Amino acid sequence: MRTTAAVALEAGKPMEIMEVNLDGPKAGEVLVEIKATGLCHTDDFTLSGADPEGAFPAILGHEGAGVVVEVGPGVTSLEPGDHVIPLYTPECRECEYCLNPKTNLCQKIRATQGAGVMPDGTSRFSMLDGTPILHYMGCSTFSNHTVLPEIALAKVRKDAPFDKICYIGCGVTTGIGAVINTAKVEIGSTAIVFGLGGIGLNVIQGLRLAGADQIVGVDINDGKAEMATHFGMTHFVNPTKVDGDIVAHLVELTGGGGDYTFDATGNVTVMRQALESAHKGWGESVIIGVAGAGQEISTRPFQLVTGRVWRGTAFGGASGRTDVPKIVDWYMDGKIEIDPMITHTLKLEEINKGFDMMHAGESIRSVVVY
Amino acid sequence: MRTTAAVALEAGKPMEIMEVNLDGPKAGEVLVEIKATGLCHTDDFTLSGADPEGAFPAILGHEGAGVVVEVGPGVTSLEPGDHVIPLYTPECRECEYCLNPKTNLCQKIRATQGAGVMPDGTSRFSMLDGTPILHYMGCSTFSNHTVLPEIALAKVRKDAPFDKICYIGCGVTTGIGAVINTAKVEIGSTAIVFGLGGIGLNVIQGLRLAGADQIVGVDINDGKAEMATHFGMTHFVNPTKVDGDIVAHLVELTGGGGDYTFDATGNVTVMRQALESAHKGWGESVIIGVAGAGQEISTRPFQLVTGRVWRGTAFGGASGRTDVPKIVDWYMDGKIEIDPMITHTLKLEEINKGFDMMHAGESIRSVVVY
Repeated sequence: MRTTAAVALEAGKPMEIMEVNLDGPKAGEVLVEIKATGLCHTDDFTLSGADPEGAFPAILGHEGAGVVVEVGPGVTSLEPGDHVIPLYTPECRECEYCLNPKTNLCQKIRATQGAGVMPDGTSRFSMLDGTPILHYMGCSTFSNHTVLPEIALAKVRKDAPFDKICYIGCGVTTGIGAVINTAKVEIGSTAIVFGLGGIGLNVIQGLRLAGADQIVGVDINDGKAEMATHFGMTHFVNPTKVDGDIVAHLVELTGGGGDYTFDATGNVTVMRQALESAHKGWGESVIIGVAGAGQEISTRPFQLVTGRVWRGTAFGGASGRTDVPKIVDWYMDGKIEIDPMITHTLKLEEINKGFDMMHAGESIRSVVVY
Repeated sequence: MRTTAAVALEAGKPMEIMEVNLDGPKAGEVLVEIKATGLCHTDDFTLSGADPEGAFPAILGHEGAGVVVEVGPGVTSLEPGDHVIPLYTPECRECEYCLNPKTNLCQKIRATQGAGVMPDGTSRFSMLDGTPILHYMGCSTFSNHTVLPEIALAKVRKDAPFDKICYIGCGVTTGIGAVINTAKVEIGSTAIVFGLGGIGLNVIQGLRLAGADQIVGVDINDGKAEMATHFGMTHFVNPTKVDGDIVAHLVELTGGGGDYTFDATGNVTVMRQALESAHKGWGESVIIGVAGAGQEISTRPFQLVTGRVWRGTAFGGASGRTDVPKIVDWYMDGKIEIDPMITHTLKLEEINKGFDMMHAGESIRSVVVY
């Protein structure tokens, strides 16, 4: 079949909207009509050329929601008409990783997904001249139709709006999951969140959901404070307006440091500040942001020997097929909010403008509706 | 009273054996006759002058065992004749830290202990000319008699030999506790231990006690392998004899990396290797060794984002008054071994020779018996 997609032809260039060929689903695969997709910093990271694993031409996008159109041979858990959210972290429920409750990093299709192809080693996408186009993060939601493995699709309720729940495909789950699955924050905890963008706001509402008492938000942009307060932030700190050391300031503000701290910036200097503003004896710091290629984190080992714990999270530690439908329920039940974070709704033709707004800091989340 | 001690008069010089004055116990304090004390690398670190918090003159030593001679006003949990092990990490059971099950870092007397004095701000030790001598880590076990706060003494059974259980005051508890309290290693785990000195051997026997399946020991000295095997090591790796990258070698050997890895070297490069040889998705790495002043650990944040956890431990996460008597029982019941690790028994007059043997790598543990 043919479908319309925003194709990233090469690094550092705007994507081009074009008709592409899409082969039907092979065994274990599913054809999905994408109804909406968010624009995430990770797409931008790859498009910019900074991602050392980035390859082109490719159809980016990994934060979508849509409807099953057709299933390939052997697919048993989905049927046409089902509403689904694509999962860049699949859940096969049978690999060594899926069977270990300590991780969500299913490895079943890791190698082929990283190479931009389906599990059989080939791509379903191609140019009209036959040139193959790579998949991206196993999702390619910047195409109106896409093909995914069955294990990379979460089946969700049909009354949930696509243009909101697409955000659960990455940002919402990453932020809330970092709190609930990775840090396992307890009621009454003190927390510090570095970076109040789309991920940071979801960390904050995850902390509110988990019952944290003090939720400190840190951002160099005062304009971020109002929305963060709406989502549950109790104290705002702008490091550029603090006299002296930001870590010492945060330790003072929290009465010894955060029980849990979160980096949602991707900046390795901030990651260190997040660790060192965790409470002596028991504070845990979670890295969520993705750092630039080759960048390293560092600290004195004394920080760990005196009880701080440094960990990271990918997709919020969520096992997608199991956890994503629950988060959709939380949204529909009003336990969490998504609508205020979706500041812009665009057509596919406007997708490059969406990334321009991201660069300018004008948007929290832009969503393309097909 | 007067007693005999090895006094560290200044950094970088041998200690001098001399008579010193010792004031009796004040309120909440206890006078202890030390019967035996181990020589630990931490004493050596301070004596060398490398410890930025080191102050002189002081009476070093923190790994002892002895008998209560006299108790000060208000002491209720101990009486003369009780056998005790001094605790450089006390357990007051009432501070914010003692009441938090996530940490053992009692802060009740932290400030004065760090300053080399008793909780009232003064030292009980002095030269015969009246010059004050500082306490060390709140213990000063290189003196035949010493005074400690009641909260810094673990009461232990009377049939346990002082010249063996003194080692439980630091090395044994640090190594075994890192496994049991900090890492909480599960039966069937795979583990890698870097450094097969006195701490590393106790990590290894802790792993055996916890039921680990594969226990890999890493040391640049082949001579360490025999003793480590005795304590439970299943595989030995000498990094100087591995072609290529030691981390890749260990990941291969363990089928993906250690579920738990431990640094018992104090070398920050090794600490990184320990983290990076932990298993993707769930591997946890524990820093036990003390690094030199100003040294830092580093890694790519990707290592944490893909599921590895970096933590540290002090005194093996043990709450001394509660846990040390249990470890003494384990020794007396044959659950753990100590005797083979105590390679040399010395008189106090030979204490400098003990540190010479430590430097030469000739000893695992030397113990001074008074």
